[in-house]
Amino acid sequence: MPPEKISSLQNPRVKQLVKLRDRRPRDEAGVFLVEGYRQIRRALEKQVALSELYFSPEWFLGENEPALIAQAEAAGAKLFELSKDAFAKVAYRERPDGLLAVAPQWRRTLDELALPAAPFLLVVEAIEKPGNLGTILRSADAAGCQAVIVCDPVTDIFNPNVVRASTGVLFSVPCIVEESQRVHAWLKARGIRTIATTPAATELYSNADLRGPLAVIMGSEQYGLSEFWLKNADLPVRIPMAGQADSLNVAMATIITLFEAVRQRS
Amino acid sequence: MPPEKISSLQNPRVKQLVKLRDRRPRDEAGVFLVEGYRQIRRALEKQVALSELYFSPEWFLGENEPALIAQAEAAGAKLFELSKDAFAKVAYRERPDGLLAVAPQWRRTLDELALPAAPFLLVVEAIEKPGNLGTILRSADAAGCQAVIVCDPVTDIFNPNVVRASTGVLFSVPCIVEESQRVHAWLKARGIRTIATTPAATELYSNADLRGPLAVIMGSEQYGLSEFWLKNADLPVRIPMAGQADSLNVAMATIITLFEAVRQRS
Repeated sequence: MPPEKISSLQNPRVKQLVKLRDRRPRDEAGVFLVEGYRQIRRALEKQVALSELYFSPEWFLGENEPALIAQAEAAGAKLFELSKDAFAKVAYRERPDGLLAVAPQWRRTLDELALPAAPFLLVVEAIEKPGNLGTILRSADAAGCQAVIVCDPVTDIFNPNVVRASTGVLFSVPCIVEESQRVHAWLKARGIRTIATTPAATELYSNADLRGPLAVIMGSEQYGLSEFWLKNADLPVRIPMAGQADSLNVAMATIITLFEAVRQRS
Repeated sequence: MPPEKISSLQNPRVKQLVKLRDRRPRDEAGVFLVEGYRQIRRALEKQVALSELYFSPEWFLGENEPALIAQAEAAGAKLFELSKDAFAKVAYRERPDGLLAVAPQWRRTLDELALPAAPFLLVVEAIEKPGNLGTILRSADAAGCQAVIVCDPVTDIFNPNVVRASTGVLFSVPCIVEESQRVHAWLKARGIRTIATTPAATELYSNADLRGPLAVIMGSEQYGLSEFWLKNADLPVRIPMAGQADSLNVAMATIITLFEAVRQRS
């Protein structure tokens, strides 16, 4: 069946795609946006069931788009061909490449996680900037964490800029959204040690033992760790800082801590 | 003397400020832009001689702007008050705060560097994205590098987005632009060991000895290290990667390597 063609900027599907940039309509519909060739290819590789694929050949940058569209259709996505103008309206990227998909949101729980004997987890609290959350997901993937647990999110994991900044890691590393108290109780029940990074700590992160069952806890950009985690983490550690106070942001502090753990655990 | 007032979008100064976003006019004029309260404050703290300060009270976000303007004027900056529209035209930030300064470019040379007995330097080659170069400068500051040497730049260090992403580190950490061959000869003459990060290396970065006189060499986003540095660096090292191949970008690889050096050197 040939794809439905859409050229009107007033088409309800066009309007809905624009709405999905915002969290409430996204959560109400239970879906999120995946834009661009690379992201869509990664979603398909990870068996994400794209429900709809919108494409606009006038925006294509390469020659592989038709194959990707065919693959998405074979995997169950409904296809829509958009005019150049209509695609310009639905695209949220600065330089669109004529491909935008809709995928179902998922909700994983802590108890679904399949963990090894010595789990290596990352817990982040109330991250505000989508770019930071995406970079943090990449860091956890590179470091080999089995999951990222997002506590009390300010930015939700299905924000289009998280999807983009994660370069597809959102589709591969299990990402669980849960309240801090429940996460703490769950970690404690499983004997997973919690290491929390805060400038107020006296112990250097590299002097702490980061082997064995481990969860690294990182606070938000503006406020750092909450009172809850400062009080309840097993060990607060700090990263030494030679320069101006704000040279390390949360994404940078995360990758430093995770890779020190990788070094110790190898 | 009260500041000159500008409201016309056709004013030659307004036009020149817009031009300074681009490299050629910036280099021809030998100046660069510093936008926003925090950046301007940091520039003044570091005795950067701002030549001009453009302000527009209708955009101010706080109450400290008049004090900063007075400080800039006392330090020698010529003041200009812009109408709301005129400022909107010259601002390059998404959310302007009514403050934009012009500063003279500098050109430091390797031989001007004052180095300790065991220097700790970062060398980056042909970085393309201003955001990455800014983040890399922050990392070098946090790690306590004495200088960042930018070889064969694609993005120049005075790009407004480098200035912004560096959160003022551009004004504090010496940043030298030089050709790779000259940098290599200079390092060699001073007995500074070069460690180059590349996925093709067999040695793990954390198994290498990163103490003593050290320069960490990082390649560009798209092409990695050039043949020149791959051939001439003393030791190629790699960062272990558990996830998908592109999870670590150059800024992340830089901070991992620099902080392993910090750990070993402390």
